[in-house]
Amino acid sequence: MEEITLVPNNSLITKTPEEGRQLAVKMARLIIKLTQPNADTREKLREVYGSDAMMLIAIGQTVAAEFATVAAANNYWR
Amino acid sequence: MEEITLVPNNSLITKTPEEGRQLAVKMARLIIKLTQPNADTREKLREVYGSDAMMLIAIGQTVAAEFATVAAANNYWR
Amino acid sequence: MEEITLVPNNSLITKTPEEGRQLAVKMARLIIKLTQPNADTREKLREVYGSDAMMLIAIGQTVAAEFATVAAANNYWR
Amino acid sequence: MEEITLVPNNSLITKTPEEGRQLAVKMARLIIKLTQPNADTREKLREVYGSDAMMLIAIGQTVAAEFATVAAANNYWR
Amino acid sequence: MEEITLVPNNSLITKTPEEGRQLAVKMARLIIKLTQPNADTREKLREVYGSDAMMLIAIGQTVAAEFATVAAANNYWR
Amino acid sequence: MEEITLVPNNSLITKTPEEGRQLAVKMARLIIKLTQPNADTREKLREVYGSDAMMLIAIGQTVAAEFATVAAANNYWR
Repeated sequence: MEEITLVPNNSLITKTPEEGRQLAVKMARLIIKLTQPNADTREKLREVYGSDAMMLIAIGQTVAAEFATVAAANNYWR
Repeated sequence: MEEITLVPNNSLITKTPEEGRQLAVKMARLIIKLTQPNADTREKLREVYGSDAMMLIAIGQTVAAEFATVAAANNYWR
Repeated sequence: MEEITLVPNNSLITKTPEEGRQLAVKMARLIIKLTQPNADTREKLREVYGSDAMMLIAIGQTVAAEFATVAAANNYWR
Repeated sequence: MEEITLVPNNSLITKTPEEGRQLAVKMARLIIKLTQPNADTREKLREVYGSDAMMLIAIGQTVAAEFATVAAANNYWR
Repeated sequence: MEEITLVPNNSLITKTPEEGRQLAVKMARLIIKLTQPNADTREKLREVYGSDAMMLIAIGQTVAAEFATVAAANNYWR
Repeated sequence: MEEITLVPNNSLITKTPEEGRQLAVKMARLIIKLTQPNADTREKLREVYGSDAMMLIAIGQTVAAEFATVAAANNYWR
């Protein structure tokens, strides 16, 4: 396994929904980093998906899925 | 992390299903904004996905996923 | 936020699974309407996805996701 | 709303996992029927997705999503 | 409904996670078989998706969804 | 069924979220290996999806789905 942290702070627990959402975004990005470790390639791909409507929507789906897990872990910060 | 609010009011709790659905839509849109901060580019992409059947369907999937989390957080407003 | 009702009757509770399924379909359609408010454009897109196998399948995925939430809200009408 | 039954027997409860799986398949198909009511068009599309690997995989994802709901409704037939 | 078994052993309960994962794979494959009953066609499609990166990823998504249900049914083999 | 381990250590239980995330990645990869057993083909496909923005996003969706199950199995390491 590559030496890269996949879950920042090694915890799904956050103080607020906002921080939970940020964690979801970070976790999604870290999988991209794990799969494509080359920073230059990732930078180029960022320009690609940043101007592609379908890819932006797909990124939204990924974050939604990660956030579902983080939110459940935090009992939805009720 | 970009300085942008990802969860309006920093809470998943809403008074009604309607407000919960609106929150789900907003949260989905904020991920697009986070990923593509340029307002002009987003405006152009909006014209793209607004007239593309597959992208509209994909947006529906994203909102459905976000709403599942918001609805669970609110115990489905039972 | 556009002035459009996103959750009919502002409730996820329905009397039967059949009505719950209809609600899931309506909620999915209302997101399309929110994202593309122009009725003529939506009518044209309907002809597109109605004759496209992949889009029909994707619509099925959207409804399945919405229905999962509605069904959970109703404790599966057990 | 079109006059078409979306949930056979108006119930998610089945006697066995096998019947639950069949219900999931039927529910997925009924959304296709609702969205494309023309039987001839559906027949043509069936030939399309039946010989398209990606579409077959996507159908599998739809059924998996429907089945998740049916299985939860039946408390997994434990 | 075609005469094909959709849930092997008509149960979601397995002794181990490994067997649960195998069940998830089988259930995913049986939906393909149900939708495309012709063995020769399926064999040809297998060569298609076996060498297509996006399709392999999509298959992974399908299995993940089926496994989520099987794992929940078994209370995660805790 | 091919002779390949699909769930490392035959358990979904891990000590930490980080290990749970690694397990999710491994489980996703093992489905690719099961579906395409040829190591040379997999190596070539890795170059394909490593430089394709949409595929990287799709991989993120797969891992998110697997991780949802692993996280639930571990009661979110609360």
